[in-house]
Amino acid sequence: MFDVPRNSRRLREASLMPEKDNGSNNVPIYISVQKDLLKLIRDRQVQPGGRFPSERELSLRFGASRMTMRKAVDHLVQEGVLERRSTSGTYVPDRLFDRPLSDHIPYSISEVVEKAGHTPGSKLLFFERKEADELIASKLALSPGDPVISIERQRTVDGVPVCLEFSHIPARLVPGLSASDVIENKSLYKLFRDNYQLDLSNKVSIISIHRVTKSEAALLDIRPGSSVLRFEGLSVTSDGQPFEHLRSLNHPDRVSFTIQQSPGESSTDEGRPVRWMLHS
Amino acid sequence: MFDVPRNSRRLREASLMPEKDNGSNNVPIYISVQKDLLKLIRDRQVQPGGRFPSERELSLRFGASRMTMRKAVDHLVQEGVLERRSTSGTYVPDRLFDRPLSDHIPYSISEVVEKAGHTPGSKLLFFERKEADELIASKLALSPGDPVISIERQRTVDGVPVCLEFSHIPARLVPGLSASDVIENKSLYKLFRDNYQLDLSNKVSIISIHRVTKSEAALLDIRPGSSVLRFEGLSVTSDGQPFEHLRSLNHPDRVSFTIQQSPGESSTDEGRPVRWMLHS
Repeated sequence: MFDVPRNSRRLREASLMPEKDNGSNNVPIYISVQKDLLKLIRDRQVQPGGRFPSERELSLRFGASRMTMRKAVDHLVQEGVLERRSTSGTYVPDRLFDRPLSDHIPYSISEVVEKAGHTPGSKLLFFERKEADELIASKLALSPGDPVISIERQRTVDGVPVCLEFSHIPARLVPGLSASDVIENKSLYKLFRDNYQLDLSNKVSIISIHRVTKSEAALLDIRPGSSVLRFEGLSVTSDGQPFEHLRSLNHPDRVSFTIQQSPGESSTDEGRPVRWMLHS
Repeated sequence: MFDVPRNSRRLREASLMPEKDNGSNNVPIYISVQKDLLKLIRDRQVQPGGRFPSERELSLRFGASRMTMRKAVDHLVQEGVLERRSTSGTYVPDRLFDRPLSDHIPYSISEVVEKAGHTPGSKLLFFERKEADELIASKLALSPGDPVISIERQRTVDGVPVCLEFSHIPARLVPGLSASDVIENKSLYKLFRDNYQLDLSNKVSIISIHRVTKSEAALLDIRPGSSVLRFEGLSVTSDGQPFEHLRSLNHPDRVSFTIQQSPGESSTDEGRPVRWMLHS
């Protein structure tokens, strides 16, 4: 511990020592201020997605110094309760789209979004029949040149873009699949199950960081070169054939991935592969 | 299809039409070039982590135009085989640390890294006894002010920083735990199991994007404000008590998270909660 002159608030703050409450308890001021800030967020005085008041405003409102406010806000930023966005200030994150990765519930993106009280949307960008290149061929256990269906979609929540999805599916596994099917069907997964008797499961998925190109940035409404959550997944049919290679680029502020485990529930699906949904 | 004047290579490229091979097959040149580029990577002519040759160099080497090279490289960047890093060029990614998230294998970070032929390291930054603030108290089902052990570590692979870990554990669950224990024990998980008879499992985890502060950036050897993979996890004891709240910030170019499912294997652990390792 350092010796700090009494009644020297400025010095105390400059040395980053905790200020003390006026009360007898030993709670540093920045911690009780933090409680006030959390209340602002929980009571929705600042809406999710909204800009958090500046340190100056907070300092006037709660009667603590700006240095204390900065410490309290910094702590909430570190913990992920608030987000600092370059020069434009501090925001209450609005993860419109919390994507569950579960081993026992067949999640559909549309269902997840609807259950959360939001409106899912999907804009079909491209639907093509292509020859598999080296890369896609190796991912889907095909030969280069084999026909694949390539689907690009922009997914939205309440009309706001949340991710871009790039799918490749061996054409022979989905005979007759048309762009209209993809536009009309809310749940592609349901379509595959009902029309093609395909029981799909997830084999492997990878989450990493990707820097978006100009065109990707435009579709996600972010700056070119921004970092996004990149998801790569391979789903297989019940007899283990690779079915879909999916690559998705997820908005950095609007999407998170959650892996939730409710002990006990998993036993209802014992021995079955991971079954979370990539489609909707 | 558009009409493209023969022998007008420049025009053909300007309109982004595929060039044709000299051979009779219809493979666009950028696809056969892509094959050559993949070979460069697979044969380790460019090492993981290394800078990929410029479009000019590639164009001279493979005798295709720079426009074609750009298209081939762009495609590999899109697919995540190559990475473009702001102005410094294109790189072969080196995911030193592919973190498995599995529902049936008790992964230890050290084990994973060692099995991949690398050397895991851990630098203890802080080991403190603190009073839980509002936020940590709510995450660990404690009352604000309850004592928690707070551990901050920088994890390395082959001496290179890959992530920062911030742990909070209720102090009453780990009586006598000291900084030395954390420094000396390669596997914290093993320590908890052996010394405290704790059988831990994962309850919930969230992966999202976080922009690093100046001090976080310094510890990860990246630029302040860079985006990193943020992992947040809660592990519980076998009777469901919250044990550890873990927050980790993972290097954007060196870490990915993989969820792998081997059908059949999961039945060996049926009904048990997700069991991947947060410690090592």
